Amino acid sequence: MAERHWMGFDLGGTKMLAAIFDEEYRCLGRERKKTKGFQGAGAGVERVVKCIHDAIANAGSTLDQIQGIGIGCPGPVDPENGVLLQAPNLGWKNLNIAELLQKEFKKPVVVLNDVDAGVFGEYQFGAGRGARSMLGVFPGTGIGGGFVYEGQIFQGHRISCMEIGHIPTVPDGPIASAGLPGSLEAVCSRLAISSLIAQAAYRGQAPSVAEKAGTDLANIRSGTLAEALKEGEPIVVEILSRAVLQLGKTIAGFVHMLAPERIVLGGGLVEAMPEFFLKKVKEGMRQWLLPPYRDVCEVVVAKLGDDAGIQGAAAWARHKIRIKT
Amino acid sequence: MAERHWMGFDLGGTKMLAAIFDEEYRCLGRERKKTKGFQGAGAGVERVVKCIHDAIANAGSTLDQIQGIGIGCPGPVDPENGVLLQAPNLGWKNLNIAELLQKEFKKPVVVLNDVDAGVFGEYQFGAGRGARSMLGVFPGTGIGGGFVYEGQIFQGHRISCMEIGHIPTVPDGPIASAGLPGSLEAVCSRLAISSLIAQAAYRGQAPSVAEKAGTDLANIRSGTLAEALKEGEPIVVEILSRAVLQLGKTIAGFVHMLAPERIVLGGGLVEAMPEFFLKKVKEGMRQWLLPPYRDVCEVVVAKLGDDAGIQGAAAWARHKIRIKT
Repeated sequence: MAERHWMGFDLGGTKMLAAIFDEEYRCLGRERKKTKGFQGAGAGVERVVKCIHDAIANAGSTLDQIQGIGIGCPGPVDPENGVLLQAPNLGWKNLNIAELLQKEFKKPVVVLNDVDAGVFGEYQFGAGRGARSMLGVFPGTGIGGGFVYEGQIFQGHRISCMEIGHIPTVPDGPIASAGLPGSLEAVCSRLAISSLIAQAAYRGQAPSVAEKAGTDLANIRSGTLAEALKEGEPIVVEILSRAVLQLGKTIAGFVHMLAPERIVLGGGLVEAMPEFFLKKVKEGMRQWLLPPYRDVCEVVVAKLGDDAGIQGAAAWARHKIRIKT
Repeated sequence: MAERHWMGFDLGGTKMLAAIFDEEYRCLGRERKKTKGFQGAGAGVERVVKCIHDAIANAGSTLDQIQGIGIGCPGPVDPENGVLLQAPNLGWKNLNIAELLQKEFKKPVVVLNDVDAGVFGEYQFGAGRGARSMLGVFPGTGIGGGFVYEGQIFQGHRISCMEIGHIPTVPDGPIASAGLPGSLEAVCSRLAISSLIAQAAYRGQAPSVAEKAGTDLANIRSGTLAEALKEGEPIVVEILSRAVLQLGKTIAGFVHMLAPERIVLGGGLVEAMPEFFLKKVKEGMRQWLLPPYRDVCEVVVAKLGDDAGIQGAAAWARHKIRIKT
């Protein structure tokens, strides 16, 4: 019998990534395309289908060999029915991705949230290996979260969850993408931090940022912040420190609630300045944790980068499909 | 063979309650004593032992018939080792209750957190029946929480958790019992609310409260607040509304994280004004919930009152001991 293969798919807000894995999770081939969500869900799904076919071809695999497809989606999903409920960055709603892909490929399809996929990837193959429970905290443009509890992705009643970016943090604080004033993501995400630094640059307080990136949020990326931090630009150090200490306190609250064995920090901001995040998050946690919770969990940095999503989606699909059959 | 019985024990900050149940969870007898934590852990455990013996006698049961003991404790516990890690209201620390009671009674002992016991009681016998996952939110002197996930009490790595009273809510807000400034419990607990109302009474803004309870927090109980609310004392309505709306928003954040099928509100404050809490919590939730999470979970009021703890402790002991053997 031919080797069995699994498809891991990461449907992102701007790009999509498909990869074929063998049973030892070696990547045999991949394909990447722009998502172009603005063209609508119909065109988007066509691109997904094309991307899958191309990845299979690139891997030298065949559709016969594919045992199942795991697809991580950028928004809350109904995992039982395989529906992407809402994708704010794509403008798509209530899209039954499982059904559409099953029709096309005649393979079992497992739909999950994209952050859950990345978190499960880190749990299986990266910084979460060996832990019985793991909380992933991924600050980037927004702030994503995911939780693995006793080897399973933690999921809610008919909906994926651990949307830690959307919890209240500062009453009547600034507004974030989801329209929630003072949510965690309105205070500690890359966008929130960059907007404060853009103000500082505009006022002339962050000359190194102003020189390299101006005052346009689109240019003040995680890398820009990391560089200014390294140069020791005082206002940047101050703004970043405050935001990450607040994130650390919030994470301490998660420890009081979930007491995971391990916390994995990932996402664009953390990738750009891993030591700083690790240090400041731990500092914020120490300020907040109650004594019995102080030694419960380790905090580490994610290892897999962009590949966590495809690896986790493939592994979760295999896990779920094995259980079903 | 004689009928099998189970012991449920609720070790509280001020009182302890022991009860014997048959296999249909009918209560056959009970005993209640003051905890007197200040006398130290040794004397406390002696009182627990005496309370258990008395409850067995009151129930017309015998030690032979007791299959196991479940004991809910007022603080974080290590459930695997049966250790009460810290009981802030008793001043006890690292007490291996399971070992002490096993030595005395030669029976299996299951140690759990007291709020978890109450939440499991509501899940099995009260307002949580039939739900696959249930979050209990119990605002009283502090704010307790517990979570049942797929039929099991949700527990952390070597420690009980869901300590929702100890999450950050208002940066640099007022200090609560655990010393955490702006924790949920510092903003929405009975003590937090009563202290604001005591100030108002002192200033002459809450004459009905001042007349009945003065300005002493020890006298401004949940019942006092409920009465003033019923009379429509404006400052009381205002303070309570703000606190419970904030609680509702925080609960909405829990829905984004845990997406439970049901949320059960209980505790002293809720028991004193159930309709008000239900209404204002739902209002706060509506202000915060993202669209896909709006219809995920129902919010209801607890049903079992003080008995939730003994019932839950007995049921959890039976559940765990059955699994073990």
